[in-house]
Amino acid sequence: MLHLVIAEAELELVPKSIADHSSVVNYARRRGKKPEEVLLDSTYHHPALKKLEDGERRGRPDIVHICLLNALESIANREGLLRVYVHTRNDEVIYVKPETRIPRNYNRFVGLMESLFKNRVVPRDLELLRMEEKSLGELVEEIEPDEVFVMSEGGTPTKPRDFGETLRSLENPLVIVGGFPHGDFKSEIPWNKISIYKAPLMAWTVVNEIIINFEHWVP
Amino acid sequence: MLHLVIAEAELELVPKSIADHSSVVNYARRRGKKPEEVLLDSTYHHPALKKLEDGERRGRPDIVHICLLNALESIANREGLLRVYVHTRNDEVIYVKPETRIPRNYNRFVGLMESLFKNRVVPRDLELLRMEEKSLGELVEEIEPDEVFVMSEGGTPTKPRDFGETLRSLENPLVIVGGFPHGDFKSEIPWNKISIYKAPLMAWTVVNEIIINFEHWVP
Repeated sequence: MLHLVIAEAELELVPKSIADHSSVVNYARRRGKKPEEVLLDSTYHHPALKKLEDGERRGRPDIVHICLLNALESIANREGLLRVYVHTRNDEVIYVKPETRIPRNYNRFVGLMESLFKNRVVPRDLELLRMEEKSLGELVEEIEPDEVFVMSEGGTPTKPRDFGETLRSLENPLVIVGGFPHGDFKSEIPWNKISIYKAPLMAWTVVNEIIINFEHWVP
Repeated sequence: MLHLVIAEAELELVPKSIADHSSVVNYARRRGKKPEEVLLDSTYHHPALKKLEDGERRGRPDIVHICLLNALESIANREGLLRVYVHTRNDEVIYVKPETRIPRNYNRFVGLMESLFKNRVVPRDLELLRMEEKSLGELVEEIEPDEVFVMSEGGTPTKPRDFGETLRSLENPLVIVGGFPHGDFKSEIPWNKISIYKAPLMAWTVVNEIIINFEHWVP
């Protein structure tokens, strides 16, 4: 089983310190919600983000959305070979059941995430998505993988195919992909660092490379 | 060079016959546009779609969006090994320059497509995206590939890796992926049909499998 963690994902509700900023207030009103109930989104809250630490990388639910659509619709997931987790910048972990059908429409996905932040599970009966306060280190410990790899530009250069073969040779490998638009991990990352390309790649590109080079199935 | 065509994509402006439907009128007003200037979108125009032929599959700009994000950010595209085209249900072809950075935000992507339908090129200076009236057959003829493959559930069962090797053995292979949510191609498809999985896959999953199994590069 391959465990894939989208880590330090830029997924959060609007922080209190900018909840009264006009770009946030207007956006929330347009959607019929309170400012503190809406996801931070760089497309709409750009002026307010300038006032936040790390503002140039925060508010990117789109990255999580595309990574999840690719991972959950992959052949590896259909074959029961994949588990996906999202770890956020504020140390929350989202557990995703493999049968989850993530909304294809971005605005519906945003609504779903807002509901998850509020209720900690969605939907209430099936609990396809569940959120817990947890650090990346705690999540890794809990999964008990036989090896942990972190995808990082500064890691050991490795061909995607060769990395896929390494993953296939293990029982329970865990791969960590940064869920942020650029830059490096903020927290301590004491694991094996791997680089699959000479230049930075989008998070969903790395997710696709890992999953497809890992796949081992017979038609 | 691998040529990838997202074909019969469910990408179109709202058809005249439903432009006066309340779900369309309200949606257009909310966005400050005329009903005939907005993209058909099943998330918002569901009640109106019931009145259209093929209504259960139309209005899916999200499929094109995710396929383009995956293809254009792939390693193959970064390495200059890929050309991407979108062919729509109404026989328009969108030529996509490899250096195009598609908006990550879905709503911005929708705005960009609406501008493309209106102006036929965006942006006016760089012409990263260009739309022409053209059938799938005419596009294939124009590209002059050495072989054409159509991804189809009913095609010859082929492992993704083996298909990737076939593509790599050719100079200019062309692969056609249906840009619709389910069902089969509507027009005549007189080419080699390939199936890479025992069950239907989402269009973007097939795009990822093709591109990553085709990639041949050295770090």
